[in-house]
Amino acid sequence: MQEITRSRVAIALIHHPVLGRKGETIGSAVTNLDLHDIARIARTYGVARYYVVTPYEDQQDLVAEIIAHWQSGHGSRYNPARKEAFSVVKLAKSLDEVIDTMTTMMKRKPALVTTSANVQENSVGYLQARKRIGEGEPTLIVFGTAHGLAAEITRKADYTLPAITGGTEYNHLSVRSAAAIICDRLLGETIN
Amino acid sequence: MQEITRSRVAIALIHHPVLGRKGETIGSAVTNLDLHDIARIARTYGVARYYVVTPYEDQQDLVAEIIAHWQSGHGSRYNPARKEAFSVVKLAKSLDEVIDTMTTMMKRKPALVTTSANVQENSVGYLQARKRIGEGEPTLIVFGTAHGLAAEITRKADYTLPAITGGTEYNHLSVRSAAAIICDRLLGETIN
Repeated sequence: MQEITRSRVAIALIHHPVLGRKGETIGSAVTNLDLHDIARIARTYGVARYYVVTPYEDQQDLVAEIIAHWQSGHGSRYNPARKEAFSVVKLAKSLDEVIDTMTTMMKRKPALVTTSANVQENSVGYLQARKRIGEGEPTLIVFGTAHGLAAEITRKADYTLPAITGGTEYNHLSVRSAAAIICDRLLGETIN
Repeated sequence: MQEITRSRVAIALIHHPVLGRKGETIGSAVTNLDLHDIARIARTYGVARYYVVTPYEDQQDLVAEIIAHWQSGHGSRYNPARKEAFSVVKLAKSLDEVIDTMTTMMKRKPALVTTSANVQENSVGYLQARKRIGEGEPTLIVFGTAHGLAAEITRKADYTLPAITGGTEYNHLSVRSAAAIICDRLLGETIN
């Protein structure tokens, strides 16, 4: 897949609205390692932007502080590779803000692609999604924290990716692992 | 891939001997999230055992405490899915101990498979590794913390997996992400 094509893909990690243990809508707290691991994944696979989405001001301050530490603070000098990973991390207040930003950048509304650990209607296979991305379609891949994306986000999806299954009935990967596997399936080099 | 075949695969995460920033041999500290994320990956892909390997007694105590919390303590009641993931986590003092344990269990020495973010000699493609596993070969996939496995481990390898590339020159995935992607490539269902 060409660099220009990968650069039309972005990832968003949603902290609100997401699902709680009982299926209720909640907001989750930002996890430091979600920033690091998914930034490194995004940078590895040539994804243009990794948007960390939270409506909470204190959480926005925390995210901004972590980004600054690795972009221009002590972290940037201690670990230049991490600085480079953090160059793709951006803070956003809402999914709508991300879509607006991408639409302006790409001059076209991105395909909104949601992910879930559960079987979804309207899911498009990984090979077909890979083909659409390869054809240059601007694409925003959305991951949920906590117990997954709330319906008010999934119902806006242009398409959904199938749940990752590992050949067992157990489907409790971390969002970090899911992001790694999905980027590899959609953007990785052909496996041989 | 059949359940019986997956169950002949184990993962080991090495905390000593691994490489430091300058290529020197060091021991690293156990990271809580490495236990959680890789346990969830192992359980998802039907891997029989996830060995956390450290020669340090204080670190062994920490690992044992975390396992106990999720196997029989408060964590096991709070989050049964996490309890199930931790059922595959085992503590080991050295890679040799892991190999001995597996050899006894499997009645045959496992193929020792090392991983690296760098290009390796003696690397076997993912499809070929998948085929060997599918044929029932007992297999121990070894991951290094810090800057990767020390030579005294890699030189024992029966084979090495190619570095994961994402189509860019950036190769700094977390070990958690690498474990997720490698399990998906070797043990995941055929992608469509």
